[in-house]
Amino acid sequence: MSDLRADGFLDGRLRILQPARGYRSGADAVMLAAACPAQPGQSVLELGCGAGVASLCLGWRVPGLDLTGLERQPDYADLARRNAAANGIGLTVVTGDLTHPPAALRARSFDHVIANPPYFLGGTAASDPGRAVARREETPLAHWIDAGLRRLRPGGVLTLIQRADRLDAMLAALHGRAGAAIVLPVCARAGREAGRVLVKARKGARTPLRLLSPFVMHADGAHGSDGDDLTPQARSVLRDGAPIAAPVAKAP
Amino acid sequence: MSDLRADGFLDGRLRILQPARGYRSGADAVMLAAACPAQPGQSVLELGCGAGVASLCLGWRVPGLDLTGLERQPDYADLARRNAAANGIGLTVVTGDLTHPPAALRARSFDHVIANPPYFLGGTAASDPGRAVARREETPLAHWIDAGLRRLRPGGVLTLIQRADRLDAMLAALHGRAGAAIVLPVCARAGREAGRVLVKARKGARTPLRLLSPFVMHADGAHGSDGDDLTPQARSVLRDGAPIAAPVAKAP
Repeated sequence: MSDLRADGFLDGRLRILQPARGYRSGADAVMLAAACPAQPGQSVLELGCGAGVASLCLGWRVPGLDLTGLERQPDYADLARRNAAANGIGLTVVTGDLTHPPAALRARSFDHVIANPPYFLGGTAASDPGRAVARREETPLAHWIDAGLRRLRPGGVLTLIQRADRLDAMLAALHGRAGAAIVLPVCARAGREAGRVLVKARKGARTPLRLLSPFVMHADGAHGSDGDDLTPQARSVLRDGAPIAAPVAKAP
Repeated sequence: MSDLRADGFLDGRLRILQPARGYRSGADAVMLAAACPAQPGQSVLELGCGAGVASLCLGWRVPGLDLTGLERQPDYADLARRNAAANGIGLTVVTGDLTHPPAALRARSFDHVIANPPYFLGGTAASDPGRAVARREETPLAHWIDAGLRRLRPGGVLTLIQRADRLDAMLAALHGRAGAAIVLPVCARAGREAGRVLVKARKGARTPLRLLSPFVMHADGAHGSDGDDLTPQARSVLRDGAPIAAPVAKAP
């Protein structure tokens, strides 16, 4: 992995080396970190941590976390270790496959599991074939969710970001095993259908699902001081590393 | 069922007798009809048609449908027949249980199946105990979806309205059996979480799900000529019997 480049995240607060080609984390990883409700002192496992963007954004926001990343590809695992060290954030990176995690990981349970599973099913058309190859799904989404639930303590929270068009597969895999699900559609602009969906669910809970109002990324005609068109909500998450606020209003 | 009252639907275009007490259809049934993409000449089965509100709203909007309602309670089935005749809309009402439909129905398959399954699980707390008893779920939601899929022709469309907090149960029951799902959250006001969800899915399809921007019922500070605060979108559906427009914008 010789051809690396440094990307800034959280308005440059984190500098993270990623391969110039191949899979590169972006806004989805930052959103995943923002949606994870981890509290100081809790343990968090990221499945498929890649270069570590989501875990490091989370570690930047919440002090005193016990952060672990699991990554199958040794090159990415090494990169995640380097990125953690360079940014001064504690992250233990374990190399291994989530369907057969190393024994040391199997012996543990976590307060939180986070994951941004690969987006493309084998055979599914993608608008960008190059990225599609890099992100082709080799482990089915249901296995990611299964692995996440196994590594959670009872009452622990699984937080996922995924293409909105796979909401059915996600909810089907969670159904009966985790409850109190919160579904946050993420859309590019107000009134557009969701492109991504953030899903949180609590292991063993039976509380019904909540389907929140969409998180809108871009505003028409709104430009911040640096020329972007992010909504204030998106700017606070992507630039300032703010958490995605817990919902308050219950539907009647 | 001696204590009946006539309710106006679609701005009084339909007058429908319903029991003054017990289960009464309302805006959900009208929304269900508006979401069904039936075309003239197609066949439609409503599971649990009650007094017939959804089927009659659909029959009012789309001419030349072959409409059938299945209703377990003979009193409601009779009422649906009376309501169809009084409104001059052809609706064949079959009395029977959706888990064991009459042979004549089992011999048929339909272009569309619509349903507004009862909302309350036995044992689930409800804000209004009286309505909860009336609507208590005796047939699990998965059985409604199973019955609907069985009565659809290949490629036929199932359209459901349900509490948003049961989206997981709905999608889990559809997963692998119907695709091209379209999920439309319905919320009381902009920015609120969804209270209801409309779900359409095509039997046997494998196209991915789409999660649409919410349908908003009420607008703050907006009052129509008759003093309501419906959004223009909600008014066109509830008052004018308009269909809920098919989505056009695909997320990038």
